[in-house]
Amino acid sequence: MILHDEILEQPQRLRHLLENQRETAQRIAQAIRSHDVQYVVIAARGTSDNAARYATYLWGALNGLPVALATPSLFTYYQTPPRMRGALVVGISQSGQSPDIVQVVEEGKRQGCLTLAITNTPDSPLAQIAEHHFDIQAGAEKAVAATKTYTAQLTAIAMIAAALSESSELWAELWQLPAWAEEVLKDEARIEQAVQRYRYMERCAVLGRGFNYATAFEWALKLKELTYVAAEPYSSADFLHGPIAMIQEGFPVMVVAPQGKIFASVHQTLEQLRRLRAETVVISNGHEALNQATTALPIPEGVPEWLSPLVSILPAQLFTYYLTLARGYDPDHPRTIFKVTRTE
Amino acid sequence: MILHDEILEQPQRLRHLLENQRETAQRIAQAIRSHDVQYVVIAARGTSDNAARYATYLWGALNGLPVALATPSLFTYYQTPPRMRGALVVGISQSGQSPDIVQVVEEGKRQGCLTLAITNTPDSPLAQIAEHHFDIQAGAEKAVAATKTYTAQLTAIAMIAAALSESSELWAELWQLPAWAEEVLKDEARIEQAVQRYRYMERCAVLGRGFNYATAFEWALKLKELTYVAAEPYSSADFLHGPIAMIQEGFPVMVVAPQGKIFASVHQTLEQLRRLRAETVVISNGHEALNQATTALPIPEGVPEWLSPLVSILPAQLFTYYLTLARGYDPDHPRTIFKVTRTE
Repeated sequence: MILHDEILEQPQRLRHLLENQRETAQRIAQAIRSHDVQYVVIAARGTSDNAARYATYLWGALNGLPVALATPSLFTYYQTPPRMRGALVVGISQSGQSPDIVQVVEEGKRQGCLTLAITNTPDSPLAQIAEHHFDIQAGAEKAVAATKTYTAQLTAIAMIAAALSESSELWAELWQLPAWAEEVLKDEARIEQAVQRYRYMERCAVLGRGFNYATAFEWALKLKELTYVAAEPYSSADFLHGPIAMIQEGFPVMVVAPQGKIFASVHQTLEQLRRLRAETVVISNGHEALNQATTALPIPEGVPEWLSPLVSILPAQLFTYYLTLARGYDPDHPRTIFKVTRTE
Repeated sequence: MILHDEILEQPQRLRHLLENQRETAQRIAQAIRSHDVQYVVIAARGTSDNAARYATYLWGALNGLPVALATPSLFTYYQTPPRMRGALVVGISQSGQSPDIVQVVEEGKRQGCLTLAITNTPDSPLAQIAEHHFDIQAGAEKAVAATKTYTAQLTAIAMIAAALSESSELWAELWQLPAWAEEVLKDEARIEQAVQRYRYMERCAVLGRGFNYATAFEWALKLKELTYVAAEPYSSADFLHGPIAMIQEGFPVMVVAPQGKIFASVHQTLEQLRRLRAETVVISNGHEALNQATTALPIPEGVPEWLSPLVSILPAQLFTYYLTLARGYDPDHPRTIFKVTRTE
């Protein structure tokens, strides 16, 4: 299967990216500093929008930059683009093709903003129009569902954060990523077994918070694209403000809960789910969380919270891949959707 | 039923709000102008977060202001609040109680930003901490599921937009709101009939775009809180980037499609749904859209797009209320959730 190969080649792609693109990250960080950027506007769709969610937390927490997700229809249908003075305008897209994303970056350039494209396709319209281009060098992605370009986008975002921080400690942690990714992917056989229980699952919630808000959204998107399960992602805090009313005995909830500053909060939600007798699939390196899970998907102990989205999405990808097979669907050719979606 | 009363009292509450708070809106607009605000950061949860989604589009389209939705955990758990120089920092909350929302506004004040609270509770911590307070004067909301405070929040946001635009035309349209709301609510008996068909629905998607992205989110939230249906909201553009793979014959999709600049785009999605033989419930004042619906929920012809979220949520509230009854649940006392949720 093409999707399976692309999931497994991620450690090697990330190693390559870290080796090749450090200078690009540093050049972009330098431009951000010299432009006195006050905040960031990011335009993206689908999987790339989930990478943008990671940037929202990471650039906020490590670099003090507020991030707004763009509302492309204001630029296209309404033709009333907001004034973006002082903003860095970023487009994230695997293919660099979607006209609405290109138009946001084009407008940023017209307004004199610093612009950046993060793509896998250097000769795409998006890469061409932006002043700076971060090529994520993931190699051609042939499966319709994005996996290796997602982790490459996250790595690019993390490299820019590390370059802006000028912290050798952050870079040292980044260099350990490929090894952690390799370790997690070794768990394949266990995950293949574990998914059987979810063969007839029709819907589920997917929870994460902070840095892993992005992971919850990306896992849910993969489940929808490949297994056709109605998987809805939430911040575990938002979940308590209403949607938790859906939960009854046996309702499946996927929870992304790596150790770190958010752990206590997500763990509390897990306890509440246990009292409601929900079924839980938990990705974590915290024993208290893994012990409460119906199905536990561990990640390595030492992963720091800021890089945990890069590691925790890997068991989620494998879980989704094997669940797709268990349900009798074709992971390489999901129905209805295509590799490149053009929206305006 | 308390919820039913609160849904029906909305026209009168909105009339009262428009009469009483125009000066407040103008004072806030004046402060935004004199502070040379460059962008807006909004902190909110649950229903109030859906009101924030409306502000994202409305203040962008009418006032050229980019809006970022805050990431409260950066302010609470991570204790790394971003630098918000040049931003207006807004907290939206019915009760004005949730500690994480209060903390974002408090930090904005500490950084010297202009701050604004939009609440239904003038003596709440949020109203007290913010420099400006917009009291939405919806009267005590006793049902757990928010309805009248949502439309009052949207009206407050629309009044601030009109005041910033200094447009008498926008104000003239605003004054017609209560009459449009009354007209829509007369459709009650028809909606009570129409919901019967969805008695055993277990999941659905809810689509909207542009100004009515907020309506899709709010309708989905009401469905989850009250009917326990796994209802997932999407921008109709994002929906095409992956989740559409879930759709098969009979899959129910709620679509909010009022006339306006976005209508052609949403109508295209509707046609695609028809080809996939999905079931559709459509709120619109466009005949082409209503004609394609399995179940059509019309709103008045003359409603301008910028105010359509205020009118189109009303049939959605009635739909949800009657579906809750049809499924045998108690609309006044949804399980698991409470009126005030405190998250950090």
